Amino acid sequence: MKIAQIAPLYESVPPKLYGGTERVVSYLTEELIRQGHEVTLFATGDSNTSARLVSHIDEALRLNPGIQDPIAHHIIQMQDVMERAEEFDILHFHNDYLHFPFSATLGKPCITTLHGRLDLPDLQYVYNKFKDRPLVSISDSQRKPLKDVCWAGTVYHGLPLDLYNKGEGKGDYVAFIGRISPEKRPDRAIEIARKAGIKIKMAAKIDKADQPYYQKHIRKLMDQPHVEFIGEIGEAQKGEFLGNAKALLFPIDWPEPFGMVMIEAMACGTPVIAFNNGSVPEIIDHGESGFVVNTIGQAVKALNQIDLLDRKLVRRTFESRFSAGIMAESYLHLFERMIPKKRKRIYMSTEMEKILNTYKTKQAS
Amino acid sequence: MKIAQIAPLYESVPPKLYGGTERVVSYLTEELIRQGHEVTLFATGDSNTSARLVSHIDEALRLNPGIQDPIAHHIIQMQDVMERAEEFDILHFHNDYLHFPFSATLGKPCITTLHGRLDLPDLQYVYNKFKDRPLVSISDSQRKPLKDVCWAGTVYHGLPLDLYNKGEGKGDYVAFIGRISPEKRPDRAIEIARKAGIKIKMAAKIDKADQPYYQKHIRKLMDQPHVEFIGEIGEAQKGEFLGNAKALLFPIDWPEPFGMVMIEAMACGTPVIAFNNGSVPEIIDHGESGFVVNTIGQAVKALNQIDLLDRKLVRRTFESRFSAGIMAESYLHLFERMIPKKRKRIYMSTEMEKILNTYKTKQAS
Repeated sequence: MKIAQIAPLYESVPPKLYGGTERVVSYLTEELIRQGHEVTLFATGDSNTSARLVSHIDEALRLNPGIQDPIAHHIIQMQDVMERAEEFDILHFHNDYLHFPFSATLGKPCITTLHGRLDLPDLQYVYNKFKDRPLVSISDSQRKPLKDVCWAGTVYHGLPLDLYNKGEGKGDYVAFIGRISPEKRPDRAIEIARKAGIKIKMAAKIDKADQPYYQKHIRKLMDQPHVEFIGEIGEAQKGEFLGNAKALLFPIDWPEPFGMVMIEAMACGTPVIAFNNGSVPEIIDHGESGFVVNTIGQAVKALNQIDLLDRKLVRRTFESRFSAGIMAESYLHLFERMIPKKRKRIYMSTEMEKILNTYKTKQAS
Repeated sequence: MKIAQIAPLYESVPPKLYGGTERVVSYLTEELIRQGHEVTLFATGDSNTSARLVSHIDEALRLNPGIQDPIAHHIIQMQDVMERAEEFDILHFHNDYLHFPFSATLGKPCITTLHGRLDLPDLQYVYNKFKDRPLVSISDSQRKPLKDVCWAGTVYHGLPLDLYNKGEGKGDYVAFIGRISPEKRPDRAIEIARKAGIKIKMAAKIDKADQPYYQKHIRKLMDQPHVEFIGEIGEAQKGEFLGNAKALLFPIDWPEPFGMVMIEAMACGTPVIAFNNGSVPEIIDHGESGFVVNTIGQAVKALNQIDLLDRKLVRRTFESRFSAGIMAESYLHLFERMIPKKRKRIYMSTEMEKILNTYKTKQAS
């Protein structure tokens, strides 16, 4: 299949630093190629890919302080896509709605994965305007604010099987990964660990926007002896950090559209204790790959019995549900449904049809 | 002519408060209708227009604190335009580059007025990508950073003739209007007035972004006895403020693409003393509607002989060069050049042509 993958230009594919969407596009692209498909990737020039790369700009926009108008670059990218649309069987967009005014004129099947939360009022306007465009959600829960649009399917994110190995969870601590922000609820994580009498290691970044929240609500909590703050960690350290943890705490307070870190933990064999919000009940098999809880009390109880879960089974759940292979197959299934079939059809003339009908009527009588 | 005017959605047309582009779109739209054309205006629902109005949103985006994603609304607007493109002879865009990926597929002539400065590096990328799209500049000077694109013409902004009346300039002060920002150089204006021994009234707004500049460089200067700060003024007060001024000082330090306030002053019969930057030498007829200067010394000298200029002539220059009528006619001239002619053509058959050629050859011999 000839596939166009159209990535945002904020980060390279994969991103040098953080960048959820571009990372998923990278895993998907590499896996589609591994499965024998011909992929063209529209992304920044510093991307690292086995696909044919089309880019008009050398560097990821977020890394370039000279960039003041990122939309201008995405409009150029859209034109690059238009100029090559003829070459593809399917075009897969990861750029929200920016292509909608022209993609219907391409004469080629287009599909769009929405990577963010959808409850912003502005998004209601735009997706309801274009309600005939096939969309892919990254969890069923993500769809809730947008009911009356054309959902083609849900495809969960996936990771390459060899990205992380199963760890033994012998580190005698629980892990927290994420921004220090009100929706991630690091305060809950700290409290759960304290009540369960276990150490917590926090691999977290503190964005500028979250500084007031950190100063007011979190800094003091981190002074407690059971808390260790280890700052932001890279991909390379993540496997060890998660693999040695007894559990990942994910006590979120917002409608998380997916939650990549949950499947990263599962890939390390590490069960997840998560609050019942957004995608959580879809990602975690309760009592198997982790526990879905509603209160801090429940989370503490879950943590106390975490050793009952089989880390091998956690890893196996990851392999069977959240591998890059499964993700690519799910997308291919959607792509196939959208590509017009090139069947040889034998058309019957009206005359011929009449004769056949007469014959049938005679047979029946 | 059936004309689509496509305005930005940040402000209504005309704007309730500040908003240069939307104001010009309003003057142009009303004048085109006055001249008998059929205009459809794509703008926000709180616009006030004689045109047929197409809007998907009730209120200007900048006035609505709930708006977080203005691009989403402009994409909807683009689709609104696409759906109606068949109805028009020409589509006139004022939204920078956002329509470029699809406007070439409309099968209708499209033209785009660029309203801002063009020396941002990101803009080089996007306008050079789409170098076949006809663009209108609002001064010749504005074009400088973008040489290799398809400039269809320069059309200067214009004002309705009855918007301002000629004032007498008897107020014994000079006027400054604009943001308190480094590129507007209010410090120069204050110094020019002081050296010429005349009072200066400053109708200026201080944006949040300009507060540090104001505090550091301007606040003290304003304490001088010859300076009166009167804050931001509305359209209604502007006529009196400018009409009573001996001159407008416009000592800018940036490549101003047009500079609306210069023609506002001229409409009030008030000459302009402006620094030679951007559009300035195109707008001001030196020694007639004002003086183009390069130094503070020259500005002081110009101010000392300002009474030599004839305020009636200043107003007449405005009327003959910067009325909304002239602006509309200039645009109509460009539109006409772009609309395919529907001439009745008599085609000659090849046979007929041969006969005619033989006849001609015979005649000549």
